[in-house]
Amino acid sequence: MENTKNYVVGVDIGGQTAKIGVIDRRGNVVAETVIPSNKHTDDHEFVAFLAEAIKALIAKAGVEGEVVGVGAGAPCANFLKGTMDNAANVTWAAGRIVPFASLLQEALDGMPVALTNDANAAALGEMYYGAARGMKDFIVITLGTGVGSGIVIDGKLVYGSDGFAGELGHVRVVRHNGRPCGCGNVGCLETYCSAIGITRTARELLELSDEPSTLRDIYKLTAKDVQEAAFAGDKIANQVYEFTGRILGEALAGFIAFSAPQAIILFGGVAKARRLLYEPATKAMNEAVCPMWKDKVQLLFSELKDSDAAILGSSAIAWEL
Amino acid sequence: MENTKNYVVGVDIGGQTAKIGVIDRRGNVVAETVIPSNKHTDDHEFVAFLAEAIKALIAKAGVEGEVVGVGAGAPCANFLKGTMDNAANVTWAAGRIVPFASLLQEALDGMPVALTNDANAAALGEMYYGAARGMKDFIVITLGTGVGSGIVIDGKLVYGSDGFAGELGHVRVVRHNGRPCGCGNVGCLETYCSAIGITRTARELLELSDEPSTLRDIYKLTAKDVQEAAFAGDKIANQVYEFTGRILGEALAGFIAFSAPQAIILFGGVAKARRLLYEPATKAMNEAVCPMWKDKVQLLFSELKDSDAAILGSSAIAWEL
Repeated sequence: MENTKNYVVGVDIGGQTAKIGVIDRRGNVVAETVIPSNKHTDDHEFVAFLAEAIKALIAKAGVEGEVVGVGAGAPCANFLKGTMDNAANVTWAAGRIVPFASLLQEALDGMPVALTNDANAAALGEMYYGAARGMKDFIVITLGTGVGSGIVIDGKLVYGSDGFAGELGHVRVVRHNGRPCGCGNVGCLETYCSAIGITRTARELLELSDEPSTLRDIYKLTAKDVQEAAFAGDKIANQVYEFTGRILGEALAGFIAFSAPQAIILFGGVAKARRLLYEPATKAMNEAVCPMWKDKVQLLFSELKDSDAAILGSSAIAWEL
Repeated sequence: MENTKNYVVGVDIGGQTAKIGVIDRRGNVVAETVIPSNKHTDDHEFVAFLAEAIKALIAKAGVEGEVVGVGAGAPCANFLKGTMDNAANVTWAAGRIVPFASLLQEALDGMPVALTNDANAAALGEMYYGAARGMKDFIVITLGTGVGSGIVIDGKLVYGSDGFAGELGHVRVVRHNGRPCGCGNVGCLETYCSAIGITRTARELLELSDEPSTLRDIYKLTAKDVQEAAFAGDKIANQVYEFTGRILGEALAGFIAFSAPQAIILFGGVAKARRLLYEPATKAMNEAVCPMWKDKVQLLFSELKDSDAAILGSSAIAWEL
């Protein structure tokens, strides 16, 4: 039966805040709010607090009885189990497995709740409202503090046998002398193409050359500093993006051989560098990819509005309830 | 509607011969035959010849009217289009696109025909009759003259946007100074883990060391020679498998991050080395994989009977018709 309700709720759980939005079928955010997510240490208490905020927002939007369900994105979320597994940076979820989806569903008097991780949410967001509208085979790479991915094959998100598929940030891209990664391995894509990877590359290049650079004057360098300097023409900063784009493009070539996507979509803070990444990444991707896909796979950028991207993405999963 | 017919025909098209089998629901080959595939230069003529052989075999097996359809595996096959695209080693298919599935269906008076490549056929074969029975998420890696793959996610083969997904033999595994590959790139998995890759590694190691080895006496070294020498305790030959297994295991770690499979199944001539590959590959895979999958993904070997593996694999796709 076609769902006749016209709204979903999107929730984006972070370590500091949770954003909540009520969203219509076209991806318009008709009401939104932000609540703190770091004031509770008990998961039941946080979920009760969140449920009240959701109910209040639905009432404020005047769409009671019109909501399909809640789609939530959270760190370490497992869609298949509906749990958050050892989310280290969340006060009420660290060191344990929180059955988030069922807790919230109960607190919302049975309203359906689906939970997924940020990258899968981003992929659904692009498919429903963004750069992947109308596509059935694509990959979203989230380039933020870390690197994640949401893979869609034949119109469906790939969850794999355990719900954790699509950890492309932890594919080893450098075999020898690779950078240590937070996951415990070395040479992971994330150590090069995340915001942290970018500052790391910048510090390495500054160390290795005498080239003047505005980056030398910045005490605590961020990826944003590097991006601004690159756009302003700083040579070292541009080398950082050359290198980052090349590593990214080579990795994308391998992902293409896996699922032959129509497009790869870059999402997140680091992706705002756009052409700085696009040029080296496209070049490296088309050089390293199996020849049958040379110049065939589009490299695109997120089309979700910045401020709403996270809740739009999370909300999209609720349309599948 | 559940299909009530109890047999399928499997066809395996090679450059020299085509093998044909009639197969029941349990994977028993109830009749089989082999015809030459290199006596024709015209695709229509070969297909007419093949259709006659199929009809004769069905009659011989006494199962007329009981056949669901024909599943064919062929080089350069595209399942979505039903075509063979520039199959260089096939006399009647080189340098052109042959609409094989529709030609054969017509020649068989409308009997359904599905076409796929060898690696996808292998994956379906393992799922219906072999090591992947009961699994919904797994990857078959075919280690033969080349390296191919068939990827199953949530019970379905991955074809991707163009029908060519799963070219894992052409993922770049060595970034610097990688071996040139037949595909035109460098550093592809295939250049290390195929039969040709194994002889190449053996020749390199023989060159680099003075270690005595029975391989030094062989004029035209094959992967089979290396395997026999390794089982007989030859040190260089064992180093070849150590190296091959390590490269393979590292690559598998990346594939796991993509689709989180329950198992990876090794198929084909090179996989007959079994423990010679298993030990280094498992070790490297578990070292390089994202920690959440350490020691979680099974590395298995094909369970299809050698002589019948190709036609069993091809036939499996016909059950999906």
